[in-house]
Amino acid sequence: MPRRAGGEGRGTTPAPLASLPVAVDAMGGDKAPAAIVEGARLARDEGIAVVLVGRPEELGDTAGLDVVAASEVIEMHEDPAQGVRRKKDSSLVRSAEMVRDGAACAMVSAGNTGATMASALLRMGRLRGVARPCIATPLPRLGRAPAVLVDAGANAECTSAMLVQFAQMGAAYAAARYGITEPSVALLSIGEEPTKGTPLVKETHGLLAAGAGVRFVGNVEGRDLLPSAADVVVTDGFTGNVTLKALEGSLRFIVETLFTVFSTDDRTSAASEALLPHLLPIAAELDPENTGGAMLLGVDGICVISHGSSSATAMRNAIRVAHELAERDLAARLAEAVASR
Amino acid sequence: MPRRAGGEGRGTTPAPLASLPVAVDAMGGDKAPAAIVEGARLARDEGIAVVLVGRPEELGDTAGLDVVAASEVIEMHEDPAQGVRRKKDSSLVRSAEMVRDGAACAMVSAGNTGATMASALLRMGRLRGVARPCIATPLPRLGRAPAVLVDAGANAECTSAMLVQFAQMGAAYAAARYGITEPSVALLSIGEEPTKGTPLVKETHGLLAAGAGVRFVGNVEGRDLLPSAADVVVTDGFTGNVTLKALEGSLRFIVETLFTVFSTDDRTSAASEALLPHLLPIAAELDPENTGGAMLLGVDGICVISHGSSSATAMRNAIRVAHELAERDLAARLAEAVASR
Repeated sequence: MPRRAGGEGRGTTPAPLASLPVAVDAMGGDKAPAAIVEGARLARDEGIAVVLVGRPEELGDTAGLDVVAASEVIEMHEDPAQGVRRKKDSSLVRSAEMVRDGAACAMVSAGNTGATMASALLRMGRLRGVARPCIATPLPRLGRAPAVLVDAGANAECTSAMLVQFAQMGAAYAAARYGITEPSVALLSIGEEPTKGTPLVKETHGLLAAGAGVRFVGNVEGRDLLPSAADVVVTDGFTGNVTLKALEGSLRFIVETLFTVFSTDDRTSAASEALLPHLLPIAAELDPENTGGAMLLGVDGICVISHGSSSATAMRNAIRVAHELAERDLAARLAEAVASR
Repeated sequence: MPRRAGGEGRGTTPAPLASLPVAVDAMGGDKAPAAIVEGARLARDEGIAVVLVGRPEELGDTAGLDVVAASEVIEMHEDPAQGVRRKKDSSLVRSAEMVRDGAACAMVSAGNTGATMASALLRMGRLRGVARPCIATPLPRLGRAPAVLVDAGANAECTSAMLVQFAQMGAAYAAARYGITEPSVALLSIGEEPTKGTPLVKETHGLLAAGAGVRFVGNVEGRDLLPSAADVVVTDGFTGNVTLKALEGSLRFIVETLFTVFSTDDRTSAASEALLPHLLPIAAELDPENTGGAMLLGVDGICVISHGSSSATAMRNAIRVAHELAERDLAARLAEAVASR
């Protein structure tokens, strides 16, 4: 009996969504399966129901976790659409089917991002009224709830109607995940004036300003992203992906540069010992590993996309987020955000 | 008798370009005119001929620098096209006219970026064969010549033919300014594969790969910008502007965060004293103030666009760069790069 998260609710008395396990793609990610299995174990030890999906014989010691067998793997650089079409018994496709079929409350993968999106989209389907799903990624803000960037890369080409839906879903997600009441929503552009930007940006600005059910605060620029002044920043998936990776790259560059300076000589090493207790918590807060992953918004189910380099801790965090958002019925809230406007 | 940098060369025996002064917009920038005048003085003291353009009565002590009177100022947030059309006696328009008329070898402004571009474009005109000028901005690489990002914001909307010309001009500029032989040229996208990105990016990838007279090395991603693997990174002006500002914003954020940590207590203050001698040179290398400003490529003359917040040092650097590129006849090299393909 299918149990759909925010969809049409077939069946009569479905189990509460959050009582179902989180389906974890055990085969996806640079450190799979070992770090994935370990992350799942950590989540289970926190009381979250988890099921591993993958090749049982490759998983090693699963510490008593449930395993659903899937014989195929969509590799990191495989063509997403082809992978999903051809590998019907892949860990990704099986994970998405478990959500569709009411056997899991959410799916989590650190594997091929495109194939994760395609699996979720093709197996779970879109939420009613959603033109295109988008990726929501946290933008860290020290000591505060992160902001949300949508679309971080699902759609290289967008229309203004799509961007308006991204704004609506992004706001509902910021509220559901971070408890932000009436999140402020900004549009990424090359100047604050409504006349700045591409035709797409100017048109979207007009639609959001005219009232789209979100608290629109106008345009922001690239320099306003870290830390973000707005709770939700809306852009097309090409700009979003390039910008997010630029931010990640610059943070990584600075951290590497700092460590090089720290190891210059005895004096700098000693100095770094005084600073590291202050710097490490900040680095941890800025690290994409700790943010619980990106979220695919607009499919009829919960799908968390973890960084390819995810460690066991990153997977534990992602599973925790997936479970929390199932408890909060994210998909239903997204459907409502898009439908009620 | 007009003296055009890379243009048609009217007149008979023009003076060598670099013997002409650099026209400096004394009224443009957050710290104008004081920091601008001081920067011009510093450049003059290094032996570079400089002429200030602006309101003589507002310039204070000009330390014997030549001044060309211009009675109007295009303000920072004024509409660029309107400003240039209406304020014919503005410091920006007069500076551009001096380049056009062979009275200056280059212009430098820290004022309204759009109005600087419009003044240069409308008064100097485009180089023969150039569809649209673009902005080239340095991407710092520690201990090496910077890479060049084109277009950093002149054209929010681009065609693939424009991007190919940006690649050609960007490569000629990297060679002229930084002495890079056969600079590598990359296209900014959301994946390394030629199939990734918007239709514009895919089409441009095809044109560059087919041979456009530059050493094309394929796509790069946002994470590859700091430090940049390629000597020239090509993108549309919307993506370029957003990305560049995102990088600047993240660097500023990290510097501020570090200084907050340094001032936590006596121990961290002492530690920072050991580290600052190593950190400050790095910060200086990453600071847009020190890179000599952005360059407008594709107009028939040399036009340096400095950061609005330019200090006297930043202006001195920008004037130095303008003079060097006049010596190296940048405009002629750009015209050749575009024409010979």
